[in-house]
Amino acid sequence: MTDLQIDNVRPMGGTVGTLHIKDGYVVDTPVPGAAALDGGGALALPAFIDAHMHLDKTLWGLPWRPHSAGKSLSEKIANERNARVELGADTEVQASRLIAQAIKNGTAAIRSHVDVDPDLGLGNVEHLLNVKAAHNDSIDIQLVAFPQTGLVSRPGTADLMEAAIKMGVELIGGIDPEVIDGDADAHIRTIFDIAERTGAGIDIHHHEEDDAGADTLDLILDAVHAYSMQGRVTLSHAFCIGMVSEQRRSTLLDRIAELDVAVITTAPGYKPFPPLNDMQRRGIRAASGSDGVRDVWTPFGNADMLERAMLLAYRSNFRRDDELAFVMEFCSLGGASVMGLDAHGPLLGQRADIVLVDAENIAEAVINRPTSRTLIKNGRVIS
Amino acid sequence: MTDLQIDNVRPMGGTVGTLHIKDGYVVDTPVPGAAALDGGGALALPAFIDAHMHLDKTLWGLPWRPHSAGKSLSEKIANERNARVELGADTEVQASRLIAQAIKNGTAAIRSHVDVDPDLGLGNVEHLLNVKAAHNDSIDIQLVAFPQTGLVSRPGTADLMEAAIKMGVELIGGIDPEVIDGDADAHIRTIFDIAERTGAGIDIHHHEEDDAGADTLDLILDAVHAYSMQGRVTLSHAFCIGMVSEQRRSTLLDRIAELDVAVITTAPGYKPFPPLNDMQRRGIRAASGSDGVRDVWTPFGNADMLERAMLLAYRSNFRRDDELAFVMEFCSLGGASVMGLDAHGPLLGQRADIVLVDAENIAEAVINRPTSRTLIKNGRVIS
Repeated sequence: MTDLQIDNVRPMGGTVGTLHIKDGYVVDTPVPGAAALDGGGALALPAFIDAHMHLDKTLWGLPWRPHSAGKSLSEKIANERNARVELGADTEVQASRLIAQAIKNGTAAIRSHVDVDPDLGLGNVEHLLNVKAAHNDSIDIQLVAFPQTGLVSRPGTADLMEAAIKMGVELIGGIDPEVIDGDADAHIRTIFDIAERTGAGIDIHHHEEDDAGADTLDLILDAVHAYSMQGRVTLSHAFCIGMVSEQRRSTLLDRIAELDVAVITTAPGYKPFPPLNDMQRRGIRAASGSDGVRDVWTPFGNADMLERAMLLAYRSNFRRDDELAFVMEFCSLGGASVMGLDAHGPLLGQRADIVLVDAENIAEAVINRPTSRTLIKNGRVIS
Repeated sequence: MTDLQIDNVRPMGGTVGTLHIKDGYVVDTPVPGAAALDGGGALALPAFIDAHMHLDKTLWGLPWRPHSAGKSLSEKIANERNARVELGADTEVQASRLIAQAIKNGTAAIRSHVDVDPDLGLGNVEHLLNVKAAHNDSIDIQLVAFPQTGLVSRPGTADLMEAAIKMGVELIGGIDPEVIDGDADAHIRTIFDIAERTGAGIDIHHHEEDDAGADTLDLILDAVHAYSMQGRVTLSHAFCIGMVSEQRRSTLLDRIAELDVAVITTAPGYKPFPPLNDMQRRGIRAASGSDGVRDVWTPFGNADMLERAMLLAYRSNFRRDDELAFVMEFCSLGGASVMGLDAHGPLLGQRADIVLVDAENIAEAVINRPTSRTLIKNGRVIS
């Protein structure tokens, strides 16, 4: 951590002033000997947080690879198992390329899932732990041991996930307990048992749809209560919340709020998703992420959380300045609340993870997504 | 029109070669005395076409204006009538700014609606006809006389629309015959009568939803048949096609195909829209557009049809290369077919409206949306 003085910036779009940073936190008086940076009149905002990535899957920076998977989740999983062998990409090189892209876009923290299964063993875990250590000074990375190809239906996976936690992975993952794994109760029990034994948090991919998906979601919420995991579980995607009746949606969101479960949505283009306003109204911790970026799952993605904020607004019919500021916060402080990081930004007392963006105000930044950005991490200029 | 030789380009993503252009068309042999351009290895693609804009509404290039309208269409219309007075923007300056942005993004043709009502009279029509004349060499502009605030519910509007056609506007517009105007039969009859008297084409904004919207759509299609307007009518938006049962959707699309009615969709973020695949399968002429760009209706928009292609794919769950090539075509040759322009592009015999894009192939161009582009219009380098 470093002392830094940023002149000529507009914290949160306010009037032009000077930001003082001491030992990585924003203070209100000049710090003798601080390094100096001219902000050029830019906005100073909380740095972006990408709360859902798959760093071990990306083909970022490699030649174009035509998408080869079918439309269903099971086809995509099968396609990946084949493509892995065909591609033979270097996981550490690839993950580092995508991290560099995220940093360039102003991202200061990433939660990434990492595949664990009997074919891969703990190989990807080792790779991402290495990558995390190598980037320790420039970006916070949190890992989730992710049973992409199934958990109880893939014997040995649970032991590998528990081993991953002992190696330093922070969270236990899960995926579609009923639809992918075929046994919701066993899937959920396995995850929560590992969490109980290891003290790890939980982040479950939940793509199951409609009322059946909501039934599984209720089982997950039952487990949060039974295992006293309030405040330590994240639901990723949770399309079903956007698919069920308004009454059931309301009941689900009330339970999620009461159990302090966090929700991550990418604002997918072709599926319903949990409504941002309804989550905000209940004080649910919620965030967004890039999900897969240029991998065998999707050609989409660019690790740009400012574009993600635009997409969240575009999909939510948000047009007012307060709504555009809300999606920006969703992609920064929302991620901090989900990942358990302390509040960051350009305001007094905040940890100085800050992005400088050349825009008139926050709303315009979301709409224009200017590409010239400066990332400051713990008071150090990173890009 | 000019002769031009573009070296070092890859037409439609093929191998590197030289493009020869004579009198504005692509030919297969060198043209003596042709101007020369180094393509730098870029893709050469058909220039983009923005088939739905509102050039007379944009606030592009002005300081940020917070969105002030309510969520409903009637609230947005009322908001605009108030904002017009408040803003007092120069319509010709504003339209020219947005056209410059579109050209920078590689757009060679625009269909723009222009508001006509008893308050405005023909003022906006005069402004956009002036702007069109001033840009005659660099971009094709087609205008639609648009009764934004109502047609039969706003006496005098029909006469103004007919006068607009006599001044040089190409098409008669309409808007939500039942919901906005309160009398679908009278609205539709008025439009088609003007078209019959003047020989103008028709482009109707149709935002009406669900089965009620489809009922109105059927009335429009009845009129296409009754007035023998096959091949000369466009439906803009037509959300209802994406909202009704699969069976009714199929029937509507079959009628649309049979009557050779064109469809324009922007791939809105928060509404269903006509499915692109189903239209393609039936050979329906279909295109996309920016719609409002940074105006009192929406803060969104940047007149970038390559970003629009990405959004079309994002909203349609398109991931394969052929699907990404399809949305690119939707935003170029699709627009030509809707606007009645002859086929353009970098292939032999095509009119040389071409955009050079720095990408590996068409799919990557849609996903990456590289911003450095060169527009060639009728064989002349425009930007």
